[in-house]
Amino acid sequence: MIDLRSDTVTRPTPEMRRAMAEAEVGDDVYREDPTINLLEARAAETFGKEAGLFVPTGTMGNTIGVKCLTTHGQEVICDARGHLLNYELSMTSWFSGCQIRAIHTEDGILTWDAIQREIRPLGPHAADTGCVELENTHNMAGGTVYPQAVIDDICDRAHERGIAVHMDGARIFNAAAASGIGVKQMCAKVDTVQFCLSKGLGAPAGSMIVGSEANMKRARLYRKRLGGGMRQVGILGAAGLIALETMPHRLSVDHENARTLAAGLAEIPGIRVITPVPATNIVIFDVSSSGKESAAISAALKLRGVLINGINPTTMRAVTHYDVSAGQCVQALTVLAETLA
Amino acid sequence: MIDLRSDTVTRPTPEMRRAMAEAEVGDDVYREDPTINLLEARAAETFGKEAGLFVPTGTMGNTIGVKCLTTHGQEVICDARGHLLNYELSMTSWFSGCQIRAIHTEDGILTWDAIQREIRPLGPHAADTGCVELENTHNMAGGTVYPQAVIDDICDRAHERGIAVHMDGARIFNAAAASGIGVKQMCAKVDTVQFCLSKGLGAPAGSMIVGSEANMKRARLYRKRLGGGMRQVGILGAAGLIALETMPHRLSVDHENARTLAAGLAEIPGIRVITPVPATNIVIFDVSSSGKESAAISAALKLRGVLINGINPTTMRAVTHYDVSAGQCVQALTVLAETLA
Amino acid sequence: MIDLRSDTVTRPTPEMRRAMAEAEVGDDVYREDPTINLLEARAAETFGKEAGLFVPTGTMGNTIGVKCLTTHGQEVICDARGHLLNYELSMTSWFSGCQIRAIHTEDGILTWDAIQREIRPLGPHAADTGCVELENTHNMAGGTVYPQAVIDDICDRAHERGIAVHMDGARIFNAAAASGIGVKQMCAKVDTVQFCLSKGLGAPAGSMIVGSEANMKRARLYRKRLGGGMRQVGILGAAGLIALETMPHRLSVDHENARTLAAGLAEIPGIRVITPVPATNIVIFDVSSSGKESAAISAALKLRGVLINGINPTTMRAVTHYDVSAGQCVQALTVLAETLA
Amino acid sequence: MIDLRSDTVTRPTPEMRRAMAEAEVGDDVYREDPTINLLEARAAETFGKEAGLFVPTGTMGNTIGVKCLTTHGQEVICDARGHLLNYELSMTSWFSGCQIRAIHTEDGILTWDAIQREIRPLGPHAADTGCVELENTHNMAGGTVYPQAVIDDICDRAHERGIAVHMDGARIFNAAAASGIGVKQMCAKVDTVQFCLSKGLGAPAGSMIVGSEANMKRARLYRKRLGGGMRQVGILGAAGLIALETMPHRLSVDHENARTLAAGLAEIPGIRVITPVPATNIVIFDVSSSGKESAAISAALKLRGVLINGINPTTMRAVTHYDVSAGQCVQALTVLAETLA
Repeated sequence: MIDLRSDTVTRPTPEMRRAMAEAEVGDDVYREDPTINLLEARAAETFGKEAGLFVPTGTMGNTIGVKCLTTHGQEVICDARGHLLNYELSMTSWFSGCQIRAIHTEDGILTWDAIQREIRPLGPHAADTGCVELENTHNMAGGTVYPQAVIDDICDRAHERGIAVHMDGARIFNAAAASGIGVKQMCAKVDTVQFCLSKGLGAPAGSMIVGSEANMKRARLYRKRLGGGMRQVGILGAAGLIALETMPHRLSVDHENARTLAAGLAEIPGIRVITPVPATNIVIFDVSSSGKESAAISAALKLRGVLINGINPTTMRAVTHYDVSAGQCVQALTVLAETLA
Repeated sequence: MIDLRSDTVTRPTPEMRRAMAEAEVGDDVYREDPTINLLEARAAETFGKEAGLFVPTGTMGNTIGVKCLTTHGQEVICDARGHLLNYELSMTSWFSGCQIRAIHTEDGILTWDAIQREIRPLGPHAADTGCVELENTHNMAGGTVYPQAVIDDICDRAHERGIAVHMDGARIFNAAAASGIGVKQMCAKVDTVQFCLSKGLGAPAGSMIVGSEANMKRARLYRKRLGGGMRQVGILGAAGLIALETMPHRLSVDHENARTLAAGLAEIPGIRVITPVPATNIVIFDVSSSGKESAAISAALKLRGVLINGINPTTMRAVTHYDVSAGQCVQALTVLAETLA
Repeated sequence: MIDLRSDTVTRPTPEMRRAMAEAEVGDDVYREDPTINLLEARAAETFGKEAGLFVPTGTMGNTIGVKCLTTHGQEVICDARGHLLNYELSMTSWFSGCQIRAIHTEDGILTWDAIQREIRPLGPHAADTGCVELENTHNMAGGTVYPQAVIDDICDRAHERGIAVHMDGARIFNAAAASGIGVKQMCAKVDTVQFCLSKGLGAPAGSMIVGSEANMKRARLYRKRLGGGMRQVGILGAAGLIALETMPHRLSVDHENARTLAAGLAEIPGIRVITPVPATNIVIFDVSSSGKESAAISAALKLRGVLINGINPTTMRAVTHYDVSAGQCVQALTVLAETLA
Repeated sequence: MIDLRSDTVTRPTPEMRRAMAEAEVGDDVYREDPTINLLEARAAETFGKEAGLFVPTGTMGNTIGVKCLTTHGQEVICDARGHLLNYELSMTSWFSGCQIRAIHTEDGILTWDAIQREIRPLGPHAADTGCVELENTHNMAGGTVYPQAVIDDICDRAHERGIAVHMDGARIFNAAAASGIGVKQMCAKVDTVQFCLSKGLGAPAGSMIVGSEANMKRARLYRKRLGGGMRQVGILGAAGLIALETMPHRLSVDHENARTLAAGLAEIPGIRVITPVPATNIVIFDVSSSGKESAAISAALKLRGVLINGINPTTMRAVTHYDVSAGQCVQALTVLAETLA
């Protein structure tokens, strides 16, 4: 199977499997897991933050980040196609008691200008803005990357108004590979960052949240409450360390493959590529003039060994990752062209 | 003072004051307040619903209505300028654990077509839609009125998909006065309705929620939790009964005054009327070409005995009600013209 | 009817009715209701606190007090028979996200010694204690009164540990009348106090919460969220002012009547008085040796014009208040004796 | 180190490490992880339930179980020393909006008689009971085991009243080993069961929740919300399968060691064993007559290679597990005797 549904499908590398088998572990609730302790220190150092915390998933990392930066009854500003709003099952509402103020954008990239218009001061009727959430890269906008100046500007101005900034950096190393800017510089002004060890980095499971010592201390308790306080989790941490240290370097290959895919898709009648030159590893394309719906196309592709999902009846998304080679991308294009013909 | 800030400023009529002084009361938590019992029966009957419940405010009525129709972790669809999203301090999130899916509209009026695109089925990532909320009249869109066919269509189709409909009818009698359609017909297909006895109807405080017996039974317990279970509240109920029975008939006077205001505003240089022919009692106008900001205009008007507030630096809102006469509206226009001159 | 079910059944006095009819009112959400402003100032002054806030019910006042003094995920210590735990429908959990750590007492009166054993420091597993809640007088323990030294001791030591203290003073003026200690002294060290204008003070509805300026500022926003932000609520405030100013002085009459009741009950075969010398206006008695259950006794009494409710199948509670005279108490005793005979 | 602090410290066996290295994995959010699918099927089958769900921790399993069986604003009955009340940081309140009604017991074992007195019907003031939670074995009561007849009785009668039953079976296989009753029979009448693959079963991390198909469908969405929806989590699942299939058989060794420990402790002056014949693998003992506090004893033991923690200043807890041999238990006794001498 050529699985282009998502980079979440990546399987651990042989090196990760070996490391997991041999991992030195301890009880992480007592903070005695040496592998996790090392991973948390490395993550903090890599991002230039005071502390880091391992969490089972990016969703938990986002929930914790938002809770660290807000109080119940505030608002969180994010892009209208953001993961936080669309794929976390209302957890910002349920757990943090905050409503999301969504801003519609072309490319998933918020600007201070757009944010500013949606900031609400605390008043007798209106919930005030607690934090801004930036998704980098932005999944549903097609793996788009925040320009560094935009991040810095948002952070500076938000902080002036007493508003914090959380970054959903599930794919932040894709952003770094594409922009050439390191994650430390990228996040220098951001308050909390969540990034995934799984997805493009290939670990089987696990994400990290990094930020100030004070926020990570609170984060640890939120993690416990949410049920993320695992014990000998250095098993996953061992894969995470390899993911963090060795995998970011190869993400540009995925980006190259995504560009190949996009270029090939543009040649197929019935397809309009929404991301003609994908910024990272995500290609989004419209199939409405093919006369077929996404679900039907997915089903037909699957019969021929290619997995690509629709976002909605007319739009599909293909995601490259290290379990799909350049050759397989070309093969997928052929299958897709024949399927639509 | 000519107070055009909101119809929330209306004071009880002499008849209401008399009724409150003489009200027969009992302990409503034991359901022994005869005045409240009568009011709840009347409200239910007026709206053609099985049962009604007195609540201290429209905000509590909306919170309860949404909670009756959803479960934690779902979504609520409403208009982007809706009261629920903008003036209830994130309570849909905090209390009901639901996030709001906002739809941008020109006139505050949702249609099934727009709603349909935002409905989410229950999936592994996405919160499903629990209810749709309609605001009628729509405050921030300028007192606009839902066409009956639109309400019925939304209800029919939402119900087909297992989605309930709550109406924020804070000013529903204004909608009825404007459309000539009675509230019973208007809400025949709606699951729960909140309407205010205060605002245009003039009671000092209090709103009602009406719906099915089962939902109102749950509503009573939510009211208790929220701290709305008052005891000898028939005092307020007595004013509410008069509000419900005698005040709807006179709302067309307020609408007439609003049209006078709008027409007059259109003549004043520097003002652009956003609601040239107001549907009900709310007039919204733009002052950006006046060279002054809303706050400055409000301050200047106040010195001359007229109260009108800005919604934002460039937009202002004037609301007519029975404490402002036709003559006072004309006077307010004069003051405003002189202030901007 | 001689209604001894609760002092919640009290009806407004003629003076209150007059005051409500004539009350000067405004829009309290804009803070323009002069009667409410006066009431809030008076309440703050009476309790020696910086600020006060009118709320529809004691339940809302308690919810707000606890929320002001805790953060989500903490614990609240209170007595096991406390109103907060037993009669507010889990709202401390739902709204404040705090669990209640209940302490069993003989008389409803917590001591620092008992509290100390239940305090939890913040740890990796245990929720820390956010606040202690004291109920004075204690309803279900039989209207018992906190000794002043106990209140002060609890507050001093709790504050040393960074733990705040909320007082549910629904019947605090009964405590003051019984102890001879003014509410200002009584609450000098308490952080927030809720007290009812209804119940023994006779207002038809309404409670107050008092505390620091900072807490009351937050309280006002919690009130809005909970749906307690009424508009021309000076109507109720006018009755509240009379309640606050003229009614505390007469509570000792109710206490005298309660003692009369208790003494008379002690003479009736089949009854064991649990509060032989009631501290305030609440009499609790056991009917298990009468051979009848509470519900049956209540039903029989009702047929003869006396209302007294059971707390459970073997225990009943009678509450005196200004709508029941000394003569009526004697008459109730006669009816009860005959009913059990 | 001889680590008797908890059975949470167990490290994966070589067989588990091998299995994790070789595990066949897929994306579990798409339900494509064959190892997890097998584990969930096995767990369901082992417990005689329709379905099972892998969760990162027992805490998450309990949170999900309670949420499946209650609605916001209800009560959950559990023992006063229960894990749910004391070690989950108020999450029953925060996430499920339910307050805990704690029952004090000698041995951690609830009975219907005790439960019955604490059940509350839905009324105008009181939250109704949503579910009963049983902890089997009971950690803080000293690894005590529910008699089967008590479980069945509680379930039968609770169900008659419309109340569900969740079992916190973090150590349920210890209960099975001690009682000789299989978990299928043990849980036949229970609605949802959480059990840990870690702790005595030795997996590095992970717990399971089992119950009806309908509840597990909802559980899956709650898991996603809580951030427990990991991707290639078959890595942990592979260890979990070995834990589930091969480890229960050896728990009686731990129980034997606990009895050895308890007998030895009884001989040491200054120690009073609270669990003279431990039912399973937990020994609790009082050190108050030793003249030393728990913390000081823990520190002294640690210097000599033995880890045992205090529950409070006068009480300590030792837990046996497969990473501590019979010989090490004897050695620990010697060290403890010398330390206290």
